[in-house]
Amino acid sequence: MARPWSFAAGPARLPDEVLGQAAARLADTTGDGLSILELPFTGREFGAVIETAEQDLRDLLGLSADWRVLFLQGGASLQFAAVPLNLMTQGADYLMSGYWSERAAREAARYGPVRLLRQTADVDPRADYCHVTTNETADGRMLRALPEAAPLVADATSDLLGRVLDLDRFGLVYASAQKNIGAAGLTIVLVRQDLLGRARPATPSMLDYAVQAANRSKANTPPTAAVWMAGLMFQWLKRQGGVAEVERRNTAKAAHLYRAIDASGGFYRGMVPAAERSILTVCFRLPTPALEENFLAAATARGLLHLKGHPVVGGLRACLYNAMPEEGVAALAGFMAEFKA
Amino acid sequence: MARPWSFAAGPARLPDEVLGQAAARLADTTGDGLSILELPFTGREFGAVIETAEQDLRDLLGLSADWRVLFLQGGASLQFAAVPLNLMTQGADYLMSGYWSERAAREAARYGPVRLLRQTADVDPRADYCHVTTNETADGRMLRALPEAAPLVADATSDLLGRVLDLDRFGLVYASAQKNIGAAGLTIVLVRQDLLGRARPATPSMLDYAVQAANRSKANTPPTAAVWMAGLMFQWLKRQGGVAEVERRNTAKAAHLYRAIDASGGFYRGMVPAAERSILTVCFRLPTPALEENFLAAATARGLLHLKGHPVVGGLRACLYNAMPEEGVAALAGFMAEFKA
Repeated sequence: MARPWSFAAGPARLPDEVLGQAAARLADTTGDGLSILELPFTGREFGAVIETAEQDLRDLLGLSADWRVLFLQGGASLQFAAVPLNLMTQGADYLMSGYWSERAAREAARYGPVRLLRQTADVDPRADYCHVTTNETADGRMLRALPEAAPLVADATSDLLGRVLDLDRFGLVYASAQKNIGAAGLTIVLVRQDLLGRARPATPSMLDYAVQAANRSKANTPPTAAVWMAGLMFQWLKRQGGVAEVERRNTAKAAHLYRAIDASGGFYRGMVPAAERSILTVCFRLPTPALEENFLAAATARGLLHLKGHPVVGGLRACLYNAMPEEGVAALAGFMAEFKA
Repeated sequence: MARPWSFAAGPARLPDEVLGQAAARLADTTGDGLSILELPFTGREFGAVIETAEQDLRDLLGLSADWRVLFLQGGASLQFAAVPLNLMTQGADYLMSGYWSERAAREAARYGPVRLLRQTADVDPRADYCHVTTNETADGRMLRALPEAAPLVADATSDLLGRVLDLDRFGLVYASAQKNIGAAGLTIVLVRQDLLGRARPATPSMLDYAVQAANRSKANTPPTAAVWMAGLMFQWLKRQGGVAEVERRNTAKAAHLYRAIDASGGFYRGMVPAAERSILTVCFRLPTPALEENFLAAATARGLLHLKGHPVVGGLRACLYNAMPEEGVAALAGFMAEFKA
């Protein structure tokens, strides 16, 4: 049987090529004699792994020297607390764009006053920071216009490396890895040097960006295997032509699917206005929940997996992260036409 | 060349058998068509992975139903903050036994009054809890007599599953995985049901044991690959005969090395009194730092790797975790005799 297409939100599909490399190196002990899983985190070999990964990420994003790159644990949901612990003194703005920005704001409100913005223009210049979710995976909404705020903080879990983000606009960007960056268990934090050192006294040391930056992400044992997987993904992404090229491909993939939705005469319905549609997470509904269940079952039988939407939002969702080729999207679009018929 | 022996503190050596299984499943897409790294964490397949891992761990430790098992991220160092955030109201006792208990106490002191105990009898019955480090990896000291305290909280990072711990004595036990439990990036927390729900309001939600217990460790994306690796290690450990059997082997391995130290006429010197010697982390010194450097270089050339002690404590250290066979210990003991000569 051909390998099925997983449209899961995370952990998401990985390139066959990267899976093959990972498996080979995991069991390969012909070099220094140790598996990648056995490298001491303070040693020379793992040092090369993490430094290469950081440099490749810097190259891909065009990061200047005033950015620090942290390889952490805990997921974006732990960053929902780490951000206010590190940056909030008086209060912060949170731009509401969907399920995940609400989750981020709810956690932040436990640490101080949080203003919920309905539109980018509402930003308060006195806020300690303004938080945005650059792509709402549950809702299928992509943020294109950014608030004029300093610093701007972004949860970019589902679009970092999936499209070009203008990093000059941001002070802090975080993303967990299980979508475009490899294996679950790694959270990338990009932070401008000038935002370090503001953490509240009660911040757990391992969540203090200044502590992790001073220790080059080795204040304690980093998730070594996930860092190594991220490094493989960064190199794969370079071979694809970089972020601008995968954004072009992701845009084309999403357009293919939105055409299938729009051409269905209302059988499939998008969930956000066309201008807000995500190129990475395509969310849509069918006329009834029962039809959605039938669709999911029939799709699964055809090797089109994990299309169920986020449980809180409902509907269907196809995640088109970097590792999903056009071929998988064409298979889904073809199935959608067939199912409707 | 034969595979070298890594005596690293972490990530530590893994059994060849488990590395082979891991590599095979990582690239194997013949079952449901997805790599283990691609399984959505909310799906049925990963559900089976985490439930099997939990049950195997329960079997190995003989855990009763009033224990909850959490598969978290962040390392033991993040637990140094999570423990007081979840359990400290008035103050806590910390038994000082070496480098890591000092680190734990220093972090806890940021959250309230911490009393540093020099001996188990000093325990204060009014303390919210008493924290112990059951094996001090940097010092080579193993705790054998436990304080009479309730609840007793343990950092068992280096000895959980490496020796039999009387869990009836504890309320909370935590351990990061990169020593006896597999890959870095996973932290196991065992917590008694009655200790849940006491977290301070400012506890990051992802660090709140009650939140993670209510969500069966899936309050956010768990480190899926590291959970799966832990599951492979639990099954390997069962095949070895369980915790009592590996304790017997670890005791014999350590005795072999301590004999080599004691028979050296003072050339090699243990770093703790004989009654406190660890069966998992054997620390020793040579007459001079220069000789220690020579020893490390010569050992490395012979395929005996990562014997340098913790930088804060100094000296040499051989970690004899479960995956280190007697053969590796014999090779080291033989080299020690030869180097002395």
